[in-house]
Amino acid sequence: MLILGIDPGIAILGFGLVRYEANKFTIIDYGAITTDAGLPMSVRLTHIYDGLIDIIEKYKPDAFAVEELFFNKNIKTALTVGHARGVAVLAGSKCGMQVYEYTPLQVKQAVVGYGRAEKSQIQQMVKVLLNLPGIPKPDDVADALAVAICHGNSSKFSEQFRV
Amino acid sequence: MLILGIDPGIAILGFGLVRYEANKFTIIDYGAITTDAGLPMSVRLTHIYDGLIDIIEKYKPDAFAVEELFFNKNIKTALTVGHARGVAVLAGSKCGMQVYEYTPLQVKQAVVGYGRAEKSQIQQMVKVLLNLPGIPKPDDVADALAVAICHGNSSKFSEQFRV
Repeated sequence: MLILGIDPGIAILGFGLVRYEANKFTIIDYGAITTDAGLPMSVRLTHIYDGLIDIIEKYKPDAFAVEELFFNKNIKTALTVGHARGVAVLAGSKCGMQVYEYTPLQVKQAVVGYGRAEKSQIQQMVKVLLNLPGIPKPDDVADALAVAICHGNSSKFSEQFRV
Repeated sequence: MLILGIDPGIAILGFGLVRYEANKFTIIDYGAITTDAGLPMSVRLTHIYDGLIDIIEKYKPDAFAVEELFFNKNIKTALTVGHARGVAVLAGSKCGMQVYEYTPLQVKQAVVGYGRAEKSQIQQMVKVLLNLPGIPKPDDVADALAVAICHGNSSKFSEQFRV
């Protein structure tokens, strides 16, 4: 199964493509779609949407897994990141993919086995599980790979997380 | 100039099509795209996106005006409505339209001439300016028409609000 993991954001949207077969993960591709803060919102959203469509059409993943977002205080940030996340979910849906979402707690539990794991522990596990030479940068990319791994580990139960 | 005004929301997205010529407004169409809370987010966003694309392709408006949203407290609501607003802005952008946004304050000032106007005053002005038999329901539709009127009144200055 080829899984596309997404860590949504308006300035940086991380993505990671991971193959999961026989309980083993293999890295396929990863990176970030970035948009300049000086551009109009409509241009930024179109860039994110088109970039994701390109990735999906190139790799034809079997599953599309997106991190669920939580914010403690900044409502303006939540609204803006919501724009990017909405467009990301739409891109998956318009390509006929099933879209799954996972909370940060679910990702931590699936990747490290511990819901209160530190970000650095997640990143180390991503590096080890995918046999990478280093931790992928920026953090958004490591987070996207973690979501993809989470979906692989959760796939047998994943119908319940479908969005 | 044919203006499509949008009041974004995930359950109810109001839209209003208004022609503005020689300082006069004429109603063309209005309504709401609604989605059921029980559906997956990916389905709801696709329904909103496809619905807006249909409206744009049918009427080919010259301008796309979206209300900017403000929330006082509920971050989860802001994130969710952000999804719908992002998809709405994307629909305008993908159809090659210029997307303009207006704050509630700008809408009130443009429609009623007073930034602290009550919702009922806005609705009465929408009814009068568009020569409607009654106030359009639900509120989201009246709000979308108000945004379209706001864009008509502001159009000579509107480059500065382009998003």
